[in-house]
Amino acid sequence: MDTISRHLDEDASATLERLDQSLVDLSKNIDVFYSLFCGAAIFMMQCGFAMLCAGSVRQKNVKNIMLKNLLDACGGALGYYAVGFGVAYEGGTFLGTSGGRFFLIDYDNYIDFFFQFTFAATAATIVAGTVAERCKMVAYLCYSLMLTGFVYPVVVHAIWNSAGFLSAFNESPFRGVGMIDFAGSGVVHMTGGATALIAAIVLGPRIGRFYDEDGNPLDKPGEFAPHSVSLQVLGTFILWFGWYGFNPGSTLFISVPGYGDVAALAAVTTTLAAAAGAVSSMFFDTLLGFLSEGEAEYDLTMAMNGCLGGLVGITAGCSTVEPWAAIIIGLIAGVVYVLASNLLVKLKIDDAVDAIPVHFFNGMWGCIATGLFASRRFVTMTYGETYSPGLFYGDGNLLLCEICGILFIIAWVTVIMGPFFIALNALGMFRVDPIEEKVGLDISHHKGAAYDLTGPAEGDVAELAEKRATAHGKSGFEDSA
Amino acid sequence: MDTISRHLDEDASATLERLDQSLVDLSKNIDVFYSLFCGAAIFMMQCGFAMLCAGSVRQKNVKNIMLKNLLDACGGALGYYAVGFGVAYEGGTFLGTSGGRFFLIDYDNYIDFFFQFTFAATAATIVAGTVAERCKMVAYLCYSLMLTGFVYPVVVHAIWNSAGFLSAFNESPFRGVGMIDFAGSGVVHMTGGATALIAAIVLGPRIGRFYDEDGNPLDKPGEFAPHSVSLQVLGTFILWFGWYGFNPGSTLFISVPGYGDVAALAAVTTTLAAAAGAVSSMFFDTLLGFLSEGEAEYDLTMAMNGCLGGLVGITAGCSTVEPWAAIIIGLIAGVVYVLASNLLVKLKIDDAVDAIPVHFFNGMWGCIATGLFASRRFVTMTYGETYSPGLFYGDGNLLLCEICGILFIIAWVTVIMGPFFIALNALGMFRVDPIEEKVGLDISHHKGAAYDLTGPAEGDVAELAEKRATAHGKSGFEDSA
Amino acid sequence: MDTISRHLDEDASATLERLDQSLVDLSKNIDVFYSLFCGAAIFMMQCGFAMLCAGSVRQKNVKNIMLKNLLDACGGALGYYAVGFGVAYEGGTFLGTSGGRFFLIDYDNYIDFFFQFTFAATAATIVAGTVAERCKMVAYLCYSLMLTGFVYPVVVHAIWNSAGFLSAFNESPFRGVGMIDFAGSGVVHMTGGATALIAAIVLGPRIGRFYDEDGNPLDKPGEFAPHSVSLQVLGTFILWFGWYGFNPGSTLFISVPGYGDVAALAAVTTTLAAAAGAVSSMFFDTLLGFLSEGEAEYDLTMAMNGCLGGLVGITAGCSTVEPWAAIIIGLIAGVVYVLASNLLVKLKIDDAVDAIPVHFFNGMWGCIATGLFASRRFVTMTYGETYSPGLFYGDGNLLLCEICGILFIIAWVTVIMGPFFIALNALGMFRVDPIEEKVGLDISHHKGAAYDLTGPAEGDVAELAEKRATAHGKSGFEDSA
Repeated sequence: MDTISRHLDEDASATLERLDQSLVDLSKNIDVFYSLFCGAAIFMMQCGFAMLCAGSVRQKNVKNIMLKNLLDACGGALGYYAVGFGVAYEGGTFLGTSGGRFFLIDYDNYIDFFFQFTFAATAATIVAGTVAERCKMVAYLCYSLMLTGFVYPVVVHAIWNSAGFLSAFNESPFRGVGMIDFAGSGVVHMTGGATALIAAIVLGPRIGRFYDEDGNPLDKPGEFAPHSVSLQVLGTFILWFGWYGFNPGSTLFISVPGYGDVAALAAVTTTLAAAAGAVSSMFFDTLLGFLSEGEAEYDLTMAMNGCLGGLVGITAGCSTVEPWAAIIIGLIAGVVYVLASNLLVKLKIDDAVDAIPVHFFNGMWGCIATGLFASRRFVTMTYGETYSPGLFYGDGNLLLCEICGILFIIAWVTVIMGPFFIALNALGMFRVDPIEEKVGLDISHHKGAAYDLTGPAEGDVAELAEKRATAHGKSGFEDSA
Repeated sequence: MDTISRHLDEDASATLERLDQSLVDLSKNIDVFYSLFCGAAIFMMQCGFAMLCAGSVRQKNVKNIMLKNLLDACGGALGYYAVGFGVAYEGGTFLGTSGGRFFLIDYDNYIDFFFQFTFAATAATIVAGTVAERCKMVAYLCYSLMLTGFVYPVVVHAIWNSAGFLSAFNESPFRGVGMIDFAGSGVVHMTGGATALIAAIVLGPRIGRFYDEDGNPLDKPGEFAPHSVSLQVLGTFILWFGWYGFNPGSTLFISVPGYGDVAALAAVTTTLAAAAGAVSSMFFDTLLGFLSEGEAEYDLTMAMNGCLGGLVGITAGCSTVEPWAAIIIGLIAGVVYVLASNLLVKLKIDDAVDAIPVHFFNGMWGCIATGLFASRRFVTMTYGETYSPGLFYGDGNLLLCEICGILFIIAWVTVIMGPFFIALNALGMFRVDPIEEKVGLDISHHKGAAYDLTGPAEGDVAELAEKRATAHGKSGFEDSA
Repeated sequence: MDTISRHLDEDASATLERLDQSLVDLSKNIDVFYSLFCGAAIFMMQCGFAMLCAGSVRQKNVKNIMLKNLLDACGGALGYYAVGFGVAYEGGTFLGTSGGRFFLIDYDNYIDFFFQFTFAATAATIVAGTVAERCKMVAYLCYSLMLTGFVYPVVVHAIWNSAGFLSAFNESPFRGVGMIDFAGSGVVHMTGGATALIAAIVLGPRIGRFYDEDGNPLDKPGEFAPHSVSLQVLGTFILWFGWYGFNPGSTLFISVPGYGDVAALAAVTTTLAAAAGAVSSMFFDTLLGFLSEGEAEYDLTMAMNGCLGGLVGITAGCSTVEPWAAIIIGLIAGVVYVLASNLLVKLKIDDAVDAIPVHFFNGMWGCIATGLFASRRFVTMTYGETYSPGLFYGDGNLLLCEICGILFIIAWVTVIMGPFFIALNALGMFRVDPIEEKVGLDISHHKGAAYDLTGPAEGDVAELAEKRATAHGKSGFEDSA
């Protein structure tokens, strides 16, 4: 009996060990799969930004903006591979300085790099739209590499690296809490948005937007109609889709018990905030228009950008706020967008695609909203028992951390990018020649216009019609020409 | 010896328990991941519908239709969150009346809400295209909220809620079988399509489609060419992509043993039916054209809509029919589309994007096809041993259930939406003013046209050419202007 | 004590068995999910190709090319279901001849078929762009079915089927190694690209490209501007996205220990090669242009196609080369693209979308690069200990196998498709009538142009303005008309 029992035990032991190892292996692979899916979805946001920006600019600058969008994804990949990833995630007080992540030289968690790269590329591409139609290609590439290689990674290091001084993952986090910025309202969107704001100020408005060619202020801002609203809507939907990788994917792992709940909550709050943002932005704008003009018009651009504002606004708190709070956050985000957009016009800051109101202002709002609405149960679920909820749940520490994070991002980006853009500008490397701007960058730098919608020669169509008529006694396609 | 043995046992017991729990946790998280992926893919169908509809309408209504597409996704999210989800899935005879799903107030399976929302939004957006170019925005928003909040959820309750009187998941299902509508040929597509049909009848055709401005019938229907076939094709491909979330995703879980087989079958039948639908629809139309006109033309619109018809047609039975049957279902779906499209023209019912033939008629066909082709082995695999296969496998009960389901959906939608649309119309809230319709809704309600393809001023181009010629002794870009 | 111990053992045994089975079941389902995601992403490449090709052609052939893109996906599904899948993966020396895969008659691993179909469809659609603007629809459909049903499957059989004579999975592989072509630089892209090359040679260039209407050679090649660069960029991004299914998905399974590492490596190398390809191609072209014209221009088309070239180039070796090697492979791929594109122009071979440089030449480069750069540790990780690394790691056998594979693909495609296209051409079934070509295929065969951007009648706009002015004392929308 004993022998049999022992025999069973030994078998069982081996089987147990094998099962245990199998489960570990399987979990690891599932996490790779999860980050692959989420990363691919986030990568599609590059496509979304490209379509949104291209649709927003005038026909004469379409190729230019799309080339910038494509190249910042590419430059972002190379720059983040070489330097950025190490700066962001290696150990170090203010930035990662040593270790295997640089050039992936001694780091084998490749999927982690892939996933993190998609975030860096997102931060970089936010700026493209704002400076569209007047920024030099070389300046754009320089700034873009600098952002993905250095500026953005330092922000990541501060807030997401456990060695970071603002990080919620720090062993002894700031104010016992640290900054909660789950998917990057601050880290990604404010960093990109703040860069865009500084760039827009230094670069100045497009000719004819607030000033005429000779620099005289216009009575009324010139409106530059987007060349294709279809592309804008396409971009918006693709971005929304990508956000389902961006927010839920920020759990980084899906095999860890409880992480499914976090990802699910993020999917729901993301959806509700986007929906609320679109609705509030459009109707708020309709209301403003009705009050001033007496006519109720529904502005698609407002709905789109409000939707994106809602998405940016929920990004920090997507895993810590209640669904009802996500709706409130989205509703306010829509209003924040409209007000910020009007404010920029008042300040004569020219943002060709309104990326600053969407990413910078709603990025700020997202951080603040987290400090207000983060609920006790979800903070516990996502970060653990020792963390504090938002102000509306009776604790002000988190809000304080969020505000510090906001100030840090603004300060850091300003200190680095401000002088950089000013120097570029002083060297005449930032802005294209006025005549090139008027002609548009596609013809002046990219071998011609983005579209050629010319149809066939009328003579040819007539000849074909004739030929068919002879053959069949009728033509049958003439109408369609 | 005994002591050792006991010791091993105790260890083993604890390890076993831990492993068991780990497996449960992991399975749950994988299911979240699965629904996240499928839901995100289905959400992209909103983009697909927007592009398809936008491409199909005239240039003067592009912004209007896209705004409707965006807002019904947003309104759908909010309405389904507040009311629809509860009505659909809470207990109750005819509709869910109480419980935690309303406002997600006491329901923590968030991913379930996310996934189900994407279906509700799909049902809502189907109607947008049909009533395009003439329906008022406010009317659209009202109907859209009503559909996602109430009409569609009641159909879900009847057919997918285990408390539903037609549900295959009912403890004692109708005729011992219940209605098999795996991913919603009936629940989603017929509900949307029937609403579109009623709306189109009440709203009447666009000016110049069957009648001239003064209401005199035209000799020949006016053809309104789609403004961009590229957008239509883009939309079609995105919809097809989304269907890989829609159909396989309707297993709801992927961790359950055997569900992988169901999802895999659904992916294959979906592919084959779509392919067969495109081919049959296009060649059937080519044949009809050749017989009447003597000229063989290949109509891309037919191929696209036939493809979508095949997708709708396989949606009910995707997990219960053999691959060869999927091809037959698709082939017939293509013909159903062409015939239904012609029928609508005969009846002078104006559907701006042919959504009624695709969703309503092929939704019906999908339900009937399931009643005919559901195979014994796959019904058993997907639903269990006690369920009956289709008529071609010797049992008529399933077909009977499908027909009852079809009749129920038509009756329910008609009873609710008929009076609703008639009332809207009587109040003058349904249709825009004729002059607005002629001008197009973009200019009359949305601040201007969707496109501005104006290039640079010729003088500026000449000036730049001159300048470069001076600088380099040649210009090098003049051709491309 | 003994009794208790035995009791525990029995329980434990049962539980162990159940857990073991659960893990097997779960793993299987996760693999289905993985292939579903990757297959869906690859399917989106159909959309990417359609947009890229449509954008690249002239406005008068947009519907034609998109119809071809849609129909080859559909034909591919049906042809691969009926014949191709069996030919590719059943046993047999040169091609699969018997067994259950034909018509899926006796094969129940449905997800495997779905995933493999997406590869076949990719191979088929590569040709569409090259022969655009002049190839007859019927010829295209014939060739397309032949490719997915027979030509491509034979290549698959040789290289990916363990029975194949070049396969790395063969029990005694060629030169002890076999050809490593992980995701198909050779199998998919060269096969499609070689077919495109032969087709382009037989079909001849478009009128006005290298010769005028009467066949006299032109002094300078006619440049046909793409009708929409926006669609091209959209297509490029979608293709890049799809590649995250194509390359990582080629592990086929994700549940197998270690396969997560392979998929992760593939995601990273894919990203880096795409980025490097875009950058090198654009700057290399800029450099060439600067040397010959003295003007630095940035060509978006170069960046896009270089990016795609990098993706094709990394496809064979994505799971066996180091990240730094992926960058080198991408950099060279960009240069290969530019040189091959120029070479085709020199040889007066007309490729409407430059698919031959991207897919054929970089497909070859991808195979060679694998023979050079495959690293010992990653070959071992992906294929096992007995396999050899590339030449730069001291072993020439792999490179030899790659070259044999390249020669085999070229020979096989030439032998079959050469006579086929020549016969089609001789029968007058390959190329459209010159007048049809000049008018464009959309009007001559597809019922009219792809776009109708006509706005509203000016009179109607004026009438509405008048009406509103009367109503409100102002119009408020006149500007936007």
